[in-house]
Amino acid sequence: MSVQMEIICVGNELLIGKTLNTNAQWLARRATSLGITVKRITVVGDDVDEIASAVREALERNSRFIITTGGLGPTFDDKTLEGIAKAVNRKLELNEKALEMVRKKYEEYAKAGKIDAVEMTPHRIKMAKLPEGAEPLLNPVGTAPGVFLRIGDANLFALPGVPSEMEAIFDEHVSRMLRKEVGDVAFFEISIYADNIMESTLAPLIDMTMRDNPRVYIKSHPRGAEKKPHIEIHLSTTAKDSKTAKDYIGKALIQLSELIKEKGGKVKLKE
Amino acid sequence: MSVQMEIICVGNELLIGKTLNTNAQWLARRATSLGITVKRITVVGDDVDEIASAVREALERNSRFIITTGGLGPTFDDKTLEGIAKAVNRKLELNEKALEMVRKKYEEYAKAGKIDAVEMTPHRIKMAKLPEGAEPLLNPVGTAPGVFLRIGDANLFALPGVPSEMEAIFDEHVSRMLRKEVGDVAFFEISIYADNIMESTLAPLIDMTMRDNPRVYIKSHPRGAEKKPHIEIHLSTTAKDSKTAKDYIGKALIQLSELIKEKGGKVKLKE
Repeated sequence: MSVQMEIICVGNELLIGKTLNTNAQWLARRATSLGITVKRITVVGDDVDEIASAVREALERNSRFIITTGGLGPTFDDKTLEGIAKAVNRKLELNEKALEMVRKKYEEYAKAGKIDAVEMTPHRIKMAKLPEGAEPLLNPVGTAPGVFLRIGDANLFALPGVPSEMEAIFDEHVSRMLRKEVGDVAFFEISIYADNIMESTLAPLIDMTMRDNPRVYIKSHPRGAEKKPHIEIHLSTTAKDSKTAKDYIGKALIQLSELIKEKGGKVKLKE
Repeated sequence: MSVQMEIICVGNELLIGKTLNTNAQWLARRATSLGITVKRITVVGDDVDEIASAVREALERNSRFIITTGGLGPTFDDKTLEGIAKAVNRKLELNEKALEMVRKKYEEYAKAGKIDAVEMTPHRIKMAKLPEGAEPLLNPVGTAPGVFLRIGDANLFALPGVPSEMEAIFDEHVSRMLRKEVGDVAFFEISIYADNIMESTLAPLIDMTMRDNPRVYIKSHPRGAEKKPHIEIHLSTTAKDSKTAKDYIGKALIQLSELIKEKGGKVKLKE
């Protein structure tokens, strides 16, 4: 049974299509490469109730890990921690460790001449108000700390929406915990291109290859125009080590390539 | 009360981070510009039960419109129609109109010499098996038809995952229906950059501007590095016509710019 994760992205800018959700892709890729199965990605707006429902639903689906991105900053519409607190019936409380992190940041800003004085305004203090029982995670490249909260068997991480901050906190704090939970698992993937064959002709060949190679997941992605079929075929697997994973993929790759060639198709490896 | 939409994207490639979800952004942007409120975007894998739950949940939240993308093709892991059928307790049945659309496509392919004969294999027929009561939507640039299904007051559209096909079916079939439902509504947005001011200093200024301009939604997005704050501020609104929308935005823009300048910040319009 694989370790499962859900990703919740918070931000109106995603729902109006202003921003492309690169955070979800980055997190999904990282988690997958650590051997974790991402089951669902949910995008909701800057709304306490929407955030709370999304978190509650992920908990009800028994996700071992939940990562949220966005909504940790100082502005009125940074509502993620309020939404999480509501989802798990906890209060928001001033966290001294988080407050110290935030204060230190503003001291640095003051020293650099970017602000006049280290005044802890309500908007700045807001970033240190965490759900009861939460732990702040130092943000190495920004102001708002990340947040870790254990809820029963679930581990929830709230990360900022600014990509560089999200990535830094993930790499410094989150990935270590994930690795500990999952142990050593190798993910391996490869893509080939098939030309001169239509996707509907290819479909039964993929079925056959997957039947003979049950550990390998194969998916076709049409890339060409209708006039000229050009299909990317993506093979992926997880295994206990890298060599085993590559063996699985190699065997499936050879079988599928031969089947495609028998049907008059051309195969080449994606660079 | 705004007309609400949910978007459901289907595909393991999104959950392993292989593919960036540009479809969700494209759809969200289009829907928003038509005056529709996108409430949630959900990404699930190629799994009948996962797709069925996502659709069921969107229906329970009373979304007037639900758009799915992905999973309509000929391969074993194209499971969206099966998932939708399961969600609403309908059977999949061969739709004659859809079958005719698919057959015509393969006749064209045969004429173009891309396949030998117009054999309607099970994988090809699969694309014409729709939930009972569904209508196929002609795909002008690919093989698998889109699907329209009315469920009570909800309108569900299933579109392919290939961006060019999804966009073509949306523009030819979906946007007309959305426009009819929503009437004429104008969405207007503008971005400015604020420099020399920190986000936490900016936050109360945005609060004040939004209090005085309740129709305008304002959100700040830090774009610079920590050393040098550079903040994009996005203002958006919907109104009954374009002139009114621009008036709303103009008034808020002037007030906010003056507040920022009073605090020593610099403002410029985003190109």
